Amino acid sequence: MKKPIAIQGIKGSFHHLVVQNYFNIDSEVVECMSFDGVVNSLLENKTDEVVMALENSIAGSIIPNYALIDNYNLSIVGEYYLGIEHCLMALNGQTIEDIEEVHSHPMALLQCKVFFKNYPHIKLVEAKDTADVAKQISEKNMKGIAAIASKNAAELYGINLLAESIQTIKHNETRFVIVKRDNSQKDISTINKASLKFELDHKRGSLAAILNVLSDCKLNLTKIQSLPKIETPWKYAFFVDVTFEAYKDYEKAVSILNLMAENFKILGEYKNARR
Amino acid sequence: MKKPIAIQGIKGSFHHLVVQNYFNIDSEVVECMSFDGVVNSLLENKTDEVVMALENSIAGSIIPNYALIDNYNLSIVGEYYLGIEHCLMALNGQTIEDIEEVHSHPMALLQCKVFFKNYPHIKLVEAKDTADVAKQISEKNMKGIAAIASKNAAELYGINLLAESIQTIKHNETRFVIVKRDNSQKDISTINKASLKFELDHKRGSLAAILNVLSDCKLNLTKIQSLPKIETPWKYAFFVDVTFEAYKDYEKAVSILNLMAENFKILGEYKNARR
Repeated sequence: MKKPIAIQGIKGSFHHLVVQNYFNIDSEVVECMSFDGVVNSLLENKTDEVVMALENSIAGSIIPNYALIDNYNLSIVGEYYLGIEHCLMALNGQTIEDIEEVHSHPMALLQCKVFFKNYPHIKLVEAKDTADVAKQISEKNMKGIAAIASKNAAELYGINLLAESIQTIKHNETRFVIVKRDNSQKDISTINKASLKFELDHKRGSLAAILNVLSDCKLNLTKIQSLPKIETPWKYAFFVDVTFEAYKDYEKAVSILNLMAENFKILGEYKNARR
Repeated sequence: MKKPIAIQGIKGSFHHLVVQNYFNIDSEVVECMSFDGVVNSLLENKTDEVVMALENSIAGSIIPNYALIDNYNLSIVGEYYLGIEHCLMALNGQTIEDIEEVHSHPMALLQCKVFFKNYPHIKLVEAKDTADVAKQISEKNMKGIAAIASKNAAELYGINLLAESIQTIKHNETRFVIVKRDNSQKDISTINKASLKFELDHKRGSLAAILNVLSDCKLNLTKIQSLPKIETPWKYAFFVDVTFEAYKDYEKAVSILNLMAENFKILGEYKNARR
């Protein structure tokens, strides 16, 4: 029997939306209140697949999630891009003038702060999960409090939309990845994207040499991010995503990178969700 | 007369520590409760220099701060690396067993969460500023609440250290930058680092070509970060930091990059703080 899929947050959260879109509208989920909890469910075999946000068009990479995947040697087996539409919601009968506080995840508050410049009487308060606030408002009949969450959360918990699409940058996209303990069941015929990690010394041209190899092997770079290795001065770790047409081109690049870069590691091979 | 320097947070915060180390122990500061507030003080000529955290060894780049510098065409004129030592502090007479809640900035909570696994009775609560919690505890005589903040904050607000250096990763470094409205008074003889931004099409080898130019001009890469331009599919923006020995080598690279890359922009030229 298929195990449930772990998500950060509760039903109605953006992670839940990704599960419904990527897997199945009726997929069962395990609700976790932290990304550590999500990973633990995988390590303890309570789940076989989990969904994690990995980067956002406004806030950039979520480095702690990269670290979780890397440190526990997990595998990215798929990706999904979700356009984030933040909605403002409160108990039925409440208007925006009745709202004294808006509670939501810090990222959601950040993404919507311009909207609230017109409502200086509203205080923004950080909460653990977007959908959980909607649930609390509904269950505890909380007046004067609004949530920023997905439209689905409003429907699921039976509260009322006060405003839709209130994020400052209208096209606000988050990239989620599907993560397993390992990628042993991969289907090479569908794979055209990979996430790689390697380390380089701070030597002039060392990264250029690696990128030349990727280019020579017909790989396209879709993301690059350096992180200094704080414990080792002048050493850098790079997280790179590449896309390719032919798996054998990618295999060739991997065999060269294994020789050229230190601690080369494949974080995942999967199907590009952008095509 | 020299204007005060704007910081995010209040006296005793890590931003304040940077001002004391980079400028002068007695430098006057303007306490702002957001990075937008910091930038506004500069735009409104209330300050001539501000300090902003830009990246952290654990959480990575603070992309919204890059966006503030970029969007308002500000200039980075200096940098400072601060080793972050988080301390736990509470009213005199309180022990860790008395503490029910720890309030701090989300980043500080994230960096110390392993420490609190041994204290499951303590609830972690997000707050706006590390030092501000220490101040509130002192002023309002709050029992049962502890702050995570710098040792300086404990001294400044007269509360007691319960534990020192409680961050999970002991070497936890944050890079701060000094930002001005423009860099018109630069002294070329001291400049050996620059922060650059440019855009490239998603074409195989386009980034490798740029990095080859940097390498040919004897520039070292100390940071690279790609960000997809969400409004323009297949277009990427790159934030790059380079160091160099000779300013003329850098000038040569700049003149080539101006021709090769789209929307090439210098975000700052300054003295490398790593030497």
